[in-house]
Amino acid sequence: MREREVIAEFFDFAAGEGVRVGVGDDAAVLSPPRGRKLAMSTDTLIAGVHFLPSDNPFFVARKAAAATLSDLAATGARPLWMTLSLTLGRAVGRKRRLTLREGKARDEALARRKKWFAEIARGFKNSAAEYGYSIVGGDLARGDETKLTTTALGELAGAPLLRTGARAGDDIWLSGCVGDAALALRLRKKNPGVVPPLAHKRVNERLHNPQPRLELGLALAGLASAAIDLSDGLASGACDLARASGVCLLLDSAKLPASPAMRRLRADMRRRLMLEGGDDYELLFCADPRHRKTLDKKFGGVRISRIGEVCAGGGAFALAGGARESLAGRGYEHDFGD
Amino acid sequence: MREREVIAEFFDFAAGEGVRVGVGDDAAVLSPPRGRKLAMSTDTLIAGVHFLPSDNPFFVARKAAAATLSDLAATGARPLWMTLSLTLGRAVGRKRRLTLREGKARDEALARRKKWFAEIARGFKNSAAEYGYSIVGGDLARGDETKLTTTALGELAGAPLLRTGARAGDDIWLSGCVGDAALALRLRKKNPGVVPPLAHKRVNERLHNPQPRLELGLALAGLASAAIDLSDGLASGACDLARASGVCLLLDSAKLPASPAMRRLRADMRRRLMLEGGDDYELLFCADPRHRKTLDKKFGGVRISRIGEVCAGGGAFALAGGARESLAGRGYEHDFGD
Repeated sequence: MREREVIAEFFDFAAGEGVRVGVGDDAAVLSPPRGRKLAMSTDTLIAGVHFLPSDNPFFVARKAAAATLSDLAATGARPLWMTLSLTLGRAVGRKRRLTLREGKARDEALARRKKWFAEIARGFKNSAAEYGYSIVGGDLARGDETKLTTTALGELAGAPLLRTGARAGDDIWLSGCVGDAALALRLRKKNPGVVPPLAHKRVNERLHNPQPRLELGLALAGLASAAIDLSDGLASGACDLARASGVCLLLDSAKLPASPAMRRLRADMRRRLMLEGGDDYELLFCADPRHRKTLDKKFGGVRISRIGEVCAGGGAFALAGGARESLAGRGYEHDFGD
Repeated sequence: MREREVIAEFFDFAAGEGVRVGVGDDAAVLSPPRGRKLAMSTDTLIAGVHFLPSDNPFFVARKAAAATLSDLAATGARPLWMTLSLTLGRAVGRKRRLTLREGKARDEALARRKKWFAEIARGFKNSAAEYGYSIVGGDLARGDETKLTTTALGELAGAPLLRTGARAGDDIWLSGCVGDAALALRLRKKNPGVVPPLAHKRVNERLHNPQPRLELGLALAGLASAAIDLSDGLASGACDLARASGVCLLLDSAKLPASPAMRRLRADMRRRLMLEGGDDYELLFCADPRHRKTLDKKFGGVRISRIGEVCAGGGAFALAGGARESLAGRGYEHDFGD
């Protein structure tokens, strides 16, 4: 099963809006919308780091797309085009190293690998159809480790949402609720019986099938003063936004919205997961208090919560019972020092 | 050494033409040139597959950029913007797995890793300065295997060069010469003394520091009927172009330009390397014979050679001594079947 066969059999993405030439030539040829700015972002998921090799490839593909679409959401852009770069790891479809003589085992491994490609392609097609963008190109390689890199381009109707615009006096808002993806990861190892089946199912959905908040991002144009997506957790995102805007973010711990599953946990554990858990792909944004009426509890297709306020100064803090706890250095970050 | 520190210390790319917001926000914000189409392409280099872990990271970064820029060259686009997705493998900077107590060895490994990042960033900056584009974003992760994915956007002044436009009667042209990168790989294992030092140095340069033919690609607008870049070798590129255009490509083996190093080899070996060797990033293109005078031996900043003609039919063939040899299935391709 060679590269060109795989591409021809599985990666036959349809060309949509603004696509003059899609998959199959040296480069895609695209017509950007007249007079509009573009937003561009890239993100990577690695097997064993961002997902498990045993995870359902349909959802792995959707999540790889969502990670990058979430960046466009936080910029207030509508996705137009995406390229994929896929590396298939040696382990996919193969349970152990096979000799040339093991014909049947090799056939089975090949069948599993074909199934993997089919499901990956189906996941990307499904995401593209749901969020209205086209997949216009990519590359496919064989390596030791499975990896999915997606790069997306979106159009901006007006001024972009940036991390830099928060001002003292602004409200701080959060879409959806946070910590559920991290809770799902934890429950994969051990469920001490406190989270009932339905709530467990819901947090699993949050881990494996995150929703990029594209509709909300578009609706926030002209309302939010700053925004960031929370791929690495609320604490980390709050610190990044505070640093970029040169302000201080004070989050009220009592106002953080908890999912039903999260409410079953002990308070200290809940707090830690909600502040430090990554992979939720929610938006954290700031807005002048005069927009409170517009920014109702449900806005841009998703429930939003007012969780704090912006002050002069620097850093990000969680307030609980009158105490101020620094959020610096908390949350997921790749470490290159070990 | 955490992700944000690495980005702040090494990946501080300057924002250039059309860049409203570059590295550092959720997405880059870009102003595309008015009324122009864009070309978009992506490519990945993997340690152990496309380069050796011991290769100089400055040149690895330049080559990762060149692989994608070469796709833009083959489309006739001028590069504007690029995003990077870098995965640092566990092995970088570390000679073996270290325990917590081996403080000095850990410090040395960290210093080597910092050096690696510094050189990778310097390679990308150098490429961006040479070819006039901006690096506008990216992501950085830790994995088992070192990988560099680059995604580039370029602008098209007019109609794009595609693989699909070749017509019977067209001439077939080749930029530079082919097979040198494959020869350099071979000489790395064994130089039977036939290639003298200076020629050896030149083919090494071709392997480690390929030049994307951007100037040529731009100059070919309105002249070439079809074009493709030869990342996977001449045979493979000729077959792809023939298939896309629905024509037959006849290459005259006697007209293939050989470098001084290549001329030292036995005829059968030379022929195989020139047809099947990948990684040269030259352009193969077709043009109506009335353009012969314009397409002189030196065109678009590089020597070009007329190496065959397009006929009705299908497939790609090399002619040698009156015999016609099929080029199907020859050259590098990732295999997912083992």
